Amino acid sequence: MILLDGKKISEEIKNEIKFSVEKLIVNRQRPPHLAAILVGEDGASLTYIGSKIRSCDQVGFKSSLFRYSSDISEIDLIKKINDLNLDSEIDGFIVQLPLPSHIDEHRVLLSINPKKDVDGFHPTNFGKMALGLKSFVPATPYGIMKLIEKYDIQTEGKSCLVVGRSNIVGRPISILMSLRGKYANSTVTIAHSKSKNLLELTSKADIVIMALGIPEFLKSDMIQKGSTVIDVGITRVEDKSKKNGYTIKGDVDFKSVSKKAKYLTPVPGGVGPMTIAMLLQNTLDARLLNSS
Amino acid sequence: MILLDGKKISEEIKNEIKFSVEKLIVNRQRPPHLAAILVGEDGASLTYIGSKIRSCDQVGFKSSLFRYSSDISEIDLIKKINDLNLDSEIDGFIVQLPLPSHIDEHRVLLSINPKKDVDGFHPTNFGKMALGLKSFVPATPYGIMKLIEKYDIQTEGKSCLVVGRSNIVGRPISILMSLRGKYANSTVTIAHSKSKNLLELTSKADIVIMALGIPEFLKSDMIQKGSTVIDVGITRVEDKSKKNGYTIKGDVDFKSVSKKAKYLTPVPGGVGPMTIAMLLQNTLDARLLNSS
Repeated sequence: MILLDGKKISEEIKNEIKFSVEKLIVNRQRPPHLAAILVGEDGASLTYIGSKIRSCDQVGFKSSLFRYSSDISEIDLIKKINDLNLDSEIDGFIVQLPLPSHIDEHRVLLSINPKKDVDGFHPTNFGKMALGLKSFVPATPYGIMKLIEKYDIQTEGKSCLVVGRSNIVGRPISILMSLRGKYANSTVTIAHSKSKNLLELTSKADIVIMALGIPEFLKSDMIQKGSTVIDVGITRVEDKSKKNGYTIKGDVDFKSVSKKAKYLTPVPGGVGPMTIAMLLQNTLDARLLNSS
Repeated sequence: MILLDGKKISEEIKNEIKFSVEKLIVNRQRPPHLAAILVGEDGASLTYIGSKIRSCDQVGFKSSLFRYSSDISEIDLIKKINDLNLDSEIDGFIVQLPLPSHIDEHRVLLSINPKKDVDGFHPTNFGKMALGLKSFVPATPYGIMKLIEKYDIQTEGKSCLVVGRSNIVGRPISILMSLRGKYANSTVTIAHSKSKNLLELTSKADIVIMALGIPEFLKSDMIQKGSTVIDVGITRVEDKSKKNGYTIKGDVDFKSVSKKAKYLTPVPGGVGPMTIAMLLQNTLDARLLNSS
């Protein structure tokens, strides 16, 4: 089994990004600047934002965090987004999801200038991606595509099963894998909560991408020998032996699947770090577009 | 076998649209107005545009056709589109595809105001559709969804195979069939020119949507008994017995497949007339949005 080492590949990508930033500095240009909006105190959100900011520091990006309490009104949040849309010193920004229930997530995402939408969640970017045009691709599926490319995994004409149809992972990766392209061109099936015979689907797929959110759901007897398995799951499972009281589990039973799959991503250290690297890549691209 | 009678259903939809137009007139409001841009002299394009204009007349819409010779520059074409974008008397408009090769189709589509993009090809509309938001849905896949709904075909948890990944049919219908919804929620596979084992895929699907463009490709021995077969193919095949010298063939061998499928669309009279009805529906919706 070949481990798809997202930690290693993401470090390589971050080094390339760092080099691009250094070139900007040498040419007396400002570094990329990523801003993040965080509403409320959700623990997982705080962790993600923290590691995005640390990664910005690592590659030489400027970063700004704007925090609001969970009772901020939708109008005030959208006003803040408009400020960021107009701020020429900010190249890209993200609104950390989920948002409190009194705020309409789609209305908020629609208010982001697509040129600064480095999460790629705005319909204009999402539509461009689906139509095969250049756009900001959501970071998680972008990271998966990058892993596949770096490990030269053959995808053309292969059957690819995506389990999960979320707008941030399942849907976009199902589209990307079926677009034209050397590391795409797969025959893609998208399965979800209403799908039947999931076992039949997983056991026939050359490539399985799990974005379900059920810890250790995929066992070795559910897959083909020699398949590629990408694990996007990150569920916090209670673990009293750990200092923070939990451990992170993927959707794949790593121990058994690793004996049968040809390629497999670990959790943690697989898709997670790639996601952050690709967010940085999108921000660098936004910076370069912003200056041209 | 139950024939999915697109001709009949489209007439019903057009009658409903006509009734909505009459209500506007009674309230002393202007009827919907659809404009079309046609570049060059392509025979099929002329036929399509002609039948769109006749359908406008039929439901009481105003229509305008702007014709240009095939040597029009991209800039001049986009200028015309800008005029239509700004014309408050035009609710929606379409640019008939294909365009001559010296014109960048994507740049042209991007110049259309998404609020008047009744073909639903602009990335903002396409992205909204893919994200499950309200948008103008491209007319052909919209027509297919409407046929499925009108005949109360069960789709939830069913396996649906889409053959073809074009931006105007295969891609959008593959997304629509896998979204949440009573007449959606299918487990969708999208196959295309790089797919292998197409026979295995067609013979396992509960619903087969053919958008391949190869006349009579799908034979009865390729499908499951009792399946639903939707034929989006419309290829002109030479036929000297016909006055115009050709006959229209679908992607499905109707004669044999009709003995095995439960539901089947004829060609012509299936998806084709539904496409025009849904273009009218989008234009009516644009008119009502325009006045609100």
